[in-house]
Amino acid sequence: MARHSLREEIVDAALEQFHAYGFNAAGVKDITDSAGVPKGSFYNHFDSKEALAVVALERYWESRGIEDLADRSVAPLARLRGHFELLRAKMEGHEFTRGCLIGNFGAEVADHSDVLRAAVGQSLARWVELITEVLAEAQQAGSLRSGLDPQATARFVLSAWEGTLILARADRSGAAFDSFFDLVFGTLLA
Amino acid sequence: MARHSLREEIVDAALEQFHAYGFNAAGVKDITDSAGVPKGSFYNHFDSKEALAVVALERYWESRGIEDLADRSVAPLARLRGHFELLRAKMEGHEFTRGCLIGNFGAEVADHSDVLRAAVGQSLARWVELITEVLAEAQQAGSLRSGLDPQATARFVLSAWEGTLILARADRSGAAFDSFFDLVFGTLLA
Repeated sequence: MARHSLREEIVDAALEQFHAYGFNAAGVKDITDSAGVPKGSFYNHFDSKEALAVVALERYWESRGIEDLADRSVAPLARLRGHFELLRAKMEGHEFTRGCLIGNFGAEVADHSDVLRAAVGQSLARWVELITEVLAEAQQAGSLRSGLDPQATARFVLSAWEGTLILARADRSGAAFDSFFDLVFGTLLA
Repeated sequence: MARHSLREEIVDAALEQFHAYGFNAAGVKDITDSAGVPKGSFYNHFDSKEALAVVALERYWESRGIEDLADRSVAPLARLRGHFELLRAKMEGHEFTRGCLIGNFGAEVADHSDVLRAAVGQSLARWVELITEVLAEAQQAGSLRSGLDPQATARFVLSAWEGTLILARADRSGAAFDSFFDLVFGTLLA
């Protein structure tokens, strides 16, 4: 069985530590300890914790299946709903902790790291783009009213999602998710 | 002219430091240096950085005029819009940095501090309550359709607001705000 390379072990551990504790609270030593590798090996693979965080964010993106929004085998609004339901289930699996790594970095470090702000910005822009395409597809199929601007609506829905995670973490309940699904799929896109 | 007490100077400095840098990145020494007081004086006034953060959060709440949502001298939906426009202007004044201290603490430390999670949760719950009352008032006045549940809608609008701040910080632009106002006041509550 092929063993993960040392670099891969560090990225996996970093994703876990950053997601659970945040960028500033997760130190390089926490990450290398968690990966079971010597701290000294870190700088053979990464220039900085910031550079590692960019790679961890890419891995996070892949782990969330966000690109599946482009899979046209499912009807557009059902696909969008399924996408957020999958993400909700992941949050529930962590008892309403952790939230979204993209949003967390956005709230904690985007102001102070140009590199991480760019990475967060690109992830959010790509996510908005994918949702925009789903909404445009729904409009073409006649399953969404034509008055909504797909891009503005996509940006709003993603904003609502990121904020929903914050409200859910604050009271460790599904109430904010219930409101999100009701208002987005029962009202806004209905 | 009355000089702020030392405790007040520490709270003011803490609010500034926490808002600009986050809970973990703002150390006690950063705060006391910024307040121009000896580090040793800190523990005469606060048991911990966490305890100080709770007081800073209360001061943040007051600085945002959130309780003005209960001022019935302005029509409900105009009042709600004015509330968010005021907050948007504050973000613009900081060139789309800083965001909302309540949401920032929610994203960064709510999972790891019961005390701060409770403080964040209470602030968000009170904010939802105030928005709920505005929406119920708008329904009674016939200026909002009756099918919307005021509390679920309030929770959703506040979630959307908190996420909007994250998107705005990521690209340092007003695009996410424009979408928020279009979708909330032009569609959802129209």
